[in-house]
Amino acid sequence: MRERDLVAAIRRRFSPDPAGGGLVLGIGDDCAVWRSTPGALTLATTDTLVEGVHFDRGWHPPRLLGRKAAAANLSDIAAMGGRPCWALLSLGLPPDLADDWITAFLDGLGEALAAAGTTLAGGDTVASPGGVTITVCLLGEGREPGIVRRAGARPGDLIWVGDRLGAAGAGLALCQAGLADRHPEWAHLVAAHLDPGHQVALGQALAATGLLTAMMDLSDGLATDLARLAEESGVGAEVEAAAVPLAAGLEAAALAVGRQALDWALAAGDDYRLLFTAAPAAAEALATAAARAGATIFPVGRIVPGQGVMLLEGGGRREISHQGFEHFAAGPGPGVIGVRPATRR
Amino acid sequence: MRERDLVAAIRRRFSPDPAGGGLVLGIGDDCAVWRSTPGALTLATTDTLVEGVHFDRGWHPPRLLGRKAAAANLSDIAAMGGRPCWALLSLGLPPDLADDWITAFLDGLGEALAAAGTTLAGGDTVASPGGVTITVCLLGEGREPGIVRRAGARPGDLIWVGDRLGAAGAGLALCQAGLADRHPEWAHLVAAHLDPGHQVALGQALAATGLLTAMMDLSDGLATDLARLAEESGVGAEVEAAAVPLAAGLEAAALAVGRQALDWALAAGDDYRLLFTAAPAAAEALATAAARAGATIFPVGRIVPGQGVMLLEGGGRREISHQGFEHFAAGPGPGVIGVRPATRR
Repeated sequence: MRERDLVAAIRRRFSPDPAGGGLVLGIGDDCAVWRSTPGALTLATTDTLVEGVHFDRGWHPPRLLGRKAAAANLSDIAAMGGRPCWALLSLGLPPDLADDWITAFLDGLGEALAAAGTTLAGGDTVASPGGVTITVCLLGEGREPGIVRRAGARPGDLIWVGDRLGAAGAGLALCQAGLADRHPEWAHLVAAHLDPGHQVALGQALAATGLLTAMMDLSDGLATDLARLAEESGVGAEVEAAAVPLAAGLEAAALAVGRQALDWALAAGDDYRLLFTAAPAAAEALATAAARAGATIFPVGRIVPGQGVMLLEGGGRREISHQGFEHFAAGPGPGVIGVRPATRR
Repeated sequence: MRERDLVAAIRRRFSPDPAGGGLVLGIGDDCAVWRSTPGALTLATTDTLVEGVHFDRGWHPPRLLGRKAAAANLSDIAAMGGRPCWALLSLGLPPDLADDWITAFLDGLGEALAAAGTTLAGGDTVASPGGVTITVCLLGEGREPGIVRRAGARPGDLIWVGDRLGAAGAGLALCQAGLADRHPEWAHLVAAHLDPGHQVALGQALAATGLLTAMMDLSDGLATDLARLAEESGVGAEVEAAAVPLAAGLEAAALAVGRQALDWALAAGDDYRLLFTAAPAAAEALATAAARAGATIFPVGRIVPGQGVMLLEGGGRREISHQGFEHFAAGPGPGVIGVRPATRR
């Protein structure tokens, strides 16, 4: 079963809420959302990182991996404009893992959670016959109607991203090519892969404007995630290739490893930056709110009637919906790491 | 790092709540508990089942595995007397898994959640280079002061269990020995391993009496779990071997596979039955409340000053604290499955 079919199967099996118990958003958005008390919403998300699929223990320092496990979940709360509250950790560990590795991992997880105003409240530890498996479940809160869903984008809306893109994909490629330490000017690309951070503050600032029509986080690349947002909203999308903001140094790194910089920005995972839509008239207010949150946002295209994500490039147009990295890469495939088989929510 | 040391390390790192944000119970009980609104508590637990550690796909029907994944988490909510509300699923799947397996697993998970008044609200799907990995995170609710903790048992309290014990351990051994289908009278033992159920209704009924001093669920065996309850309460415990209620047919199954029935009741995992304490004067009220919830409860011993769990047997006494199945088994060890390396919370 392909991952999209699997998620569709889960969604069919569990939607609509058979218990009828106040679920506001079930499967299919960045977080599950339910009404805890009148006006107050609880948000819940979970993300798993699997050794050999999502990370390579050989080059990923455990402290940064702990930070990344937190960020992957914090980014889902960010994607709805929520506030993170409590985390649970389920940790699968191979028997030979060094104590120092575990301690450093917990330190990284703890410092990233604390910086976001949350902490670990519980969890489970299990033996793992394969590699390290990390599942974080993060609870958050929001107020009605402040939560922003994936569904809601309307034809004519501008499509925005919350930062320059592609850094995490480039950093992964540099690590895979053994070039992580080659140039100091690539350090921020490598850092973006190892320790991507999140945009919780930006998500809250944007949601507070009340001007967004839809939002999600970029965890599988713009081509895939924008296709999801468009599907949930029942619309199509056009992305201007020339408008996609590339992370600094992306072109030079792409040359070094024989890739195209734009491919990383469109199709690499783990950016954990926000993707959102709003009417064109909202542009100035959104840019101002973002600046106050310390972020620069970039319009990359427009919502259109219909369906699918089209890339407008050099006068031509081609569909890029759901295209992962392997469909873009000119060179050899990136191996199992980097073609994120996860369906992030 | 041994599992006990790992949990202690996590607890040290994350306790007390550095965020100071209303956490009522952090790491170290069956659920994390925080105050959502005045008087209302949110409960959260997570449990992971790993193929080759917690289950064998060769004999575990996927529908029953889905039910068991739900039960393991429902049992943690039961252990505090809470009400289950919402579940998240993180599912790690090997690439060759048949669609039918996934569909049956989801059906089992869904029917067990629905029967407990809850449903799946969200999750994550990832590729797993090893076997199937199932992490369920379950949210529940309770009222203050109705939630029962592990800490609170006092010297003189009776120690109770919520059912006859050992069935799941016997069922596992029968499956491992290829005897699962041998005798119809063992079917309930095999079923207890494959589809153990939970005691959510009993947990709520007992908590509602206001008479319990401590409660948890039996997921790693009485010897280990009672040691945890005693440690959290700062007391010791004595178990009368002759009082431990054995599941029907346990003696015959033990003879068939060369084990001792009492070992399964003391040290095998996955019973998912409740363990609780209360003053002796509460006995009749508890038995009545249990009967109304359709359960029979059994006193198995007494809380004493000091520390450690002692087994009183044939005039002698020996410490059994934290002894897993391998310390009891007369025959060859049960292999990796059955010596549950998980630390269940």
